Amino acid sequence: MAAQERMDTGAVAVIGLGSMGLGMAASLGRAGYRVSGFDVSDASVARFAASGGRAASSPAEAADGASCVVSVVVNAAQTEAVLFGENGCLHAMPEGAVFVSCATMAPDAARSLGERVAATGRFFLDAPMSGGSARAAEGALTMMLSGDPDAVARVRPVLDAMCSVLHVLGDAPGQGAAFKIVNQLLAGVHIAAACEAIAFAAREGLDLQRVYEVITQSAGNSWMFGNRVPHVLEGDYSPRSSVEIFIKDLGIVLDMARARQFPLPLAGSALQMFLMAAASGMGKDDDSSVARVYARMAGLTLPGEG
Amino acid sequence: MAAQERMDTGAVAVIGLGSMGLGMAASLGRAGYRVSGFDVSDASVARFAASGGRAASSPAEAADGASCVVSVVVNAAQTEAVLFGENGCLHAMPEGAVFVSCATMAPDAARSLGERVAATGRFFLDAPMSGGSARAAEGALTMMLSGDPDAVARVRPVLDAMCSVLHVLGDAPGQGAAFKIVNQLLAGVHIAAACEAIAFAAREGLDLQRVYEVITQSAGNSWMFGNRVPHVLEGDYSPRSSVEIFIKDLGIVLDMARARQFPLPLAGSALQMFLMAAASGMGKDDDSSVARVYARMAGLTLPGEG
Repeated sequence: MAAQERMDTGAVAVIGLGSMGLGMAASLGRAGYRVSGFDVSDASVARFAASGGRAASSPAEAADGASCVVSVVVNAAQTEAVLFGENGCLHAMPEGAVFVSCATMAPDAARSLGERVAATGRFFLDAPMSGGSARAAEGALTMMLSGDPDAVARVRPVLDAMCSVLHVLGDAPGQGAAFKIVNQLLAGVHIAAACEAIAFAAREGLDLQRVYEVITQSAGNSWMFGNRVPHVLEGDYSPRSSVEIFIKDLGIVLDMARARQFPLPLAGSALQMFLMAAASGMGKDDDSSVARVYARMAGLTLPGEG
Repeated sequence: MAAQERMDTGAVAVIGLGSMGLGMAASLGRAGYRVSGFDVSDASVARFAASGGRAASSPAEAADGASCVVSVVVNAAQTEAVLFGENGCLHAMPEGAVFVSCATMAPDAARSLGERVAATGRFFLDAPMSGGSARAAEGALTMMLSGDPDAVARVRPVLDAMCSVLHVLGDAPGQGAAFKIVNQLLAGVHIAAACEAIAFAAREGLDLQRVYEVITQSAGNSWMFGNRVPHVLEGDYSPRSSVEIFIKDLGIVLDMARARQFPLPLAGSALQMFLMAAASGMGKDDDSSVARVYARMAGLTLPGEG
């Protein structure tokens, strides 16, 4: 059981060093872990190395000797590549090591990956998260976790270094993914609704700063309204989270529901708005760009535009 | 200017004694005002009288001698009837008295009523509110106010007795209504989205109490999710706010937008869900009944149902 001690110290690998992964790696470093990292983008790896991380040239090299690998990529296909692809990390991980998968994916995909990892004597935790890059950098993410309880207990200190709220939702992969999917349904609808409402307020000639103040103190508020509308008020569409992320996530939501013949008209309308944003050339911009879709259609000038 | 003193004491009338108006009348009574009241429902008037209010048999009788009349009816047509209909209150109000109109209505309707009242030497404050009947009873509503600044200053103590947050948004009727309409767009979409998400979670077999706990701590949260989903978890669809209220309010939102050729696809989808609930016989039930629409379609059993 020597390999199965609680990971209060030791080596952790982070695969995927985008705005989320980089912040999570920094949180792990502050907590005293030796953090190695890999990303397909050389620029991301360089940024990680500049912040003091041990840069690796492949998932396998990053995971070499790490009892815990945290995967912060965007979907099931990338997660599969990280594990099983060329220079994938799975066989570089010691037996009994724990793979923490943070990507949003369908529950079936998480279950399938979990079974393939378990068959090799390693552990797969289904660990999607909520909270943006600022929370990632602070070690204050919310995680929706499911997987083997002993593996969870073992890497608990690693998870606590990255998260302020940890929801343990089941003892097998798939449950975490399912809760995250419900969250993404709501988050996607709320972003689109926030953009619809603020653009409509602009059409009505209202003072948008006042609209923000009033709504955030009223029953029409949402976490996303409070978080995304400031991007519109500042006219800053640099991507904190891109339009394409919600095209992906609402795509998963709607694929799941269609497979069960379950209608989701609100989520369906929201996806169409994100697709309109991408079709307008804003796919890599901040997801609050949906407000610009309404504004362009209606000939409105939002703050910082025009 | 004797009639134009600050109303720290005196007679206030409340027209419309439903769950909101009754609570507001009680808050005014606690603050030391002499409160007279009227409602078209004899049962509501009796409830008001039993709580110590002075029951009147018409808006005119309630308003007789009151320097401030608070109108808590549901739409512009009812507000017009309260003011100008048979035994309407307008001409029973002393010159210089202030009519506080709390109904949600289109900005144009508020402007028009305001002009007609002003022409008689009284004042019309456009004062829609946010917050349910519990907040009304506590004197803790949020009000979105616009109208003559002197009239606002005069009835400020009356408003403070009913509200914990008072947004003064402009010096003429219409501005308050416009902010409320933006709030209702969001509130309506968020209720429908909350119902869509919790029903989908039930379809996925998730523990709905856990879903509530996780979402209310995540980026998918909204004020409405936190407020309405407990009704679904308790299987209690007695109306705190009915499906028909949002059919009315989203109807106003969408009529306004259509008149301006402004598209609101999210709000449009939400309205269809409230219409499905009403078509299913749930129009007078709590607006969280939208969850039951999804559940019935998909053959799901929600808590307390089936």
